[in-house]
Amino acid sequence: MSYQFSDRVQSLKPSAIREIFKYAADPDVVSLSAGNPAPEAFPVKEIAEISNEILKNRPVDALQYSVTEGYPPLREYLTGYMKKEHNIGRSFDSILITSGASQAMDLFTKSILNEGDTVICEAPSFIGSLNTFRSFKAHLCGVPMEPDGMNMDALEKALNEEKNVKFIYTIPNFQNPTGVTMSAEKRRRMYRLAKEHGVLILEDNPYGDLRFEGNHIEAVKSLDEDGIVVYAGTFSKVIAPGIRVGYCIAPKEIIQKMVVCKQGEDVHTTIWSQMVCYEMMAHHDFDAHLRRLKEIYRKKAKVASDALDRFLAPKITYLPIQGGLFFWCTLPDGVNMMDYCKKAVQKKVCVVPGNAFLTDETQPCSSFRINYTTPTDEKLVKGIKILGSIL
Amino acid sequence: MSYQFSDRVQSLKPSAIREIFKYAADPDVVSLSAGNPAPEAFPVKEIAEISNEILKNRPVDALQYSVTEGYPPLREYLTGYMKKEHNIGRSFDSILITSGASQAMDLFTKSILNEGDTVICEAPSFIGSLNTFRSFKAHLCGVPMEPDGMNMDALEKALNEEKNVKFIYTIPNFQNPTGVTMSAEKRRRMYRLAKEHGVLILEDNPYGDLRFEGNHIEAVKSLDEDGIVVYAGTFSKVIAPGIRVGYCIAPKEIIQKMVVCKQGEDVHTTIWSQMVCYEMMAHHDFDAHLRRLKEIYRKKAKVASDALDRFLAPKITYLPIQGGLFFWCTLPDGVNMMDYCKKAVQKKVCVVPGNAFLTDETQPCSSFRINYTTPTDEKLVKGIKILGSIL
Repeated sequence: MSYQFSDRVQSLKPSAIREIFKYAADPDVVSLSAGNPAPEAFPVKEIAEISNEILKNRPVDALQYSVTEGYPPLREYLTGYMKKEHNIGRSFDSILITSGASQAMDLFTKSILNEGDTVICEAPSFIGSLNTFRSFKAHLCGVPMEPDGMNMDALEKALNEEKNVKFIYTIPNFQNPTGVTMSAEKRRRMYRLAKEHGVLILEDNPYGDLRFEGNHIEAVKSLDEDGIVVYAGTFSKVIAPGIRVGYCIAPKEIIQKMVVCKQGEDVHTTIWSQMVCYEMMAHHDFDAHLRRLKEIYRKKAKVASDALDRFLAPKITYLPIQGGLFFWCTLPDGVNMMDYCKKAVQKKVCVVPGNAFLTDETQPCSSFRINYTTPTDEKLVKGIKILGSIL
Repeated sequence: MSYQFSDRVQSLKPSAIREIFKYAADPDVVSLSAGNPAPEAFPVKEIAEISNEILKNRPVDALQYSVTEGYPPLREYLTGYMKKEHNIGRSFDSILITSGASQAMDLFTKSILNEGDTVICEAPSFIGSLNTFRSFKAHLCGVPMEPDGMNMDALEKALNEEKNVKFIYTIPNFQNPTGVTMSAEKRRRMYRLAKEHGVLILEDNPYGDLRFEGNHIEAVKSLDEDGIVVYAGTFSKVIAPGIRVGYCIAPKEIIQKMVVCKQGEDVHTTIWSQMVCYEMMAHHDFDAHLRRLKEIYRKKAKVASDALDRFLAPKITYLPIQGGLFFWCTLPDGVNMMDYCKKAVQKKVCVVPGNAFLTDETQPCSSFRINYTTPTDEKLVKGIKILGSIL
């Protein structure tokens, strides 16, 4: 039988970079293409203790159906924590626990976007979110990134010229893929622009707690007195991604619609996972855990940047980072980026070609993304050395 | 700010029965309105042992990101098990692990259905799936249920008359809400009709393993030599629902599209949960567990049906069941069902008004649904006794 798929999935084309990822499974290959957090930062001992206690003393709580909004103690604790630590959340807001932050993008887009509506996003941006927007047939409009975040004049122009703009999508801290952090000034200007144009902001902040250098910059959501910012957070990078727990803080009316959509998607997020996150935050030294984690990332990023300086500079440049998982490297003029990435694969090093992160993959791009947190230090240096040898 | 939601969620209206559910949280209320499996059937000891072993010996496997398709050992084991035990799966099929069976309905609908396309479903049917179809703006066409499944003449008429029918949705075993099981003859006729009309079948089988009486009837998917049946299964009723693990067996091309959609929804299902299911099936006596579970349900259903016979018959009738979680009760002529359910709530017993399960909630309905598996035996009998006192 030949199957006739929906228009929305027919428009989702397999990415040209898929071929390259196939090689990443080869154990001889140094994969710098993942988006995985450092496994040595997982609080394994604590998770095992918590899990043991839950399954011993209150197994039915962890195993029976629960409410779609999320495990009530986690919702309550997180609400207080985000307000206290980040000034996030007002009386008009509510919180929804999601199955990873990706689900927050999916549920929000499903709730708000009609076919053909516009999403303004950073160019380049996270491929997973771009594909989610595409799966609801969004029109994507990319705003060029600068070392301190989106070009605000280009953003203003897009807001003036694009039709049916529903929201601006931003990863303000250590952005995927560029590692760029948006300045406080730009955050405030973006907020004002969105407010003036009656457009929402979807703030995706998976990496904010992974800052190992420089000063914290206030979240866009912390400015939100008007109910125009939808904030997506996650435990994937501060506890572990395999447990699939994220959250969304947004105006109640929006959360209510997202709850209806989540009911149909997965009813609720795995309770065991939600209990692990709650216990980890409320009854363990979560701050100490975050400090330990930042130290791991700081050291590892130093290993990577030293190797980049030694083996890639000055021909291949990269943007310095103060946190997050990625380095964004740019090839010298005249070097074909896709050819370079293919050669790297032949030499058993995988990176992600930069065009994968564009709203239009066919546009020219001379950059590629490196992840430094998944491989061992030894493999990381080996991989970067090989990358340097290709030019 | 006033928010403009997407057309698809604007059409999702809060159900009229929501008011009634509010009362179910009151501890004095006997809730017969849930869809929860019996908590005493959860294999708590085994899950604790498995979890302990995983987090001790291979924590990173359970905590790091994984592949969207599902934990490979579980996929492989389930593929073999379903073929051997149920003759489900052919060389053209593949398997996807989902976050509960609900996600299989969601991903399949997203992959196959354009706005306005028709889904033919049993009337009444599971409200969660109906809302999922509605969230993609399906046109729903209900086919009346009989004590041995859908009326096949009505199904044939619908297939001949409805436009753009994409699939038939069925819960063939111990259907939610009626408890009805479709006969083998009707399964074969439905399959032939679907094949003749070039229409797919979405077979949702959450309760198939909960048969405590009568003989097993082969799954519709076991007939599928043509690649027209999408089968959704789940561990929610045979292990536990809080862990959120379901699966979908369907032609490869369909699974591939669902994988792309799942990537954007939640990347993958919680790994810990998937590992628990795999270990439970592959390295514990899963058959013995299923036998124990059926015994619990058999006893509990007997308590319920004895009470129904004693307190509700002959005025209020019910359909006998051979498995599953629900009894479908019908009021005598002239009794307003919604008034009856409201009176029950005032007397602190919650049931689900039958019209909630219709494709059009405003249609007349004189039935209501009882769940017998969540309350204790004592509460169950007490609740049914009160229901009998209302007339």
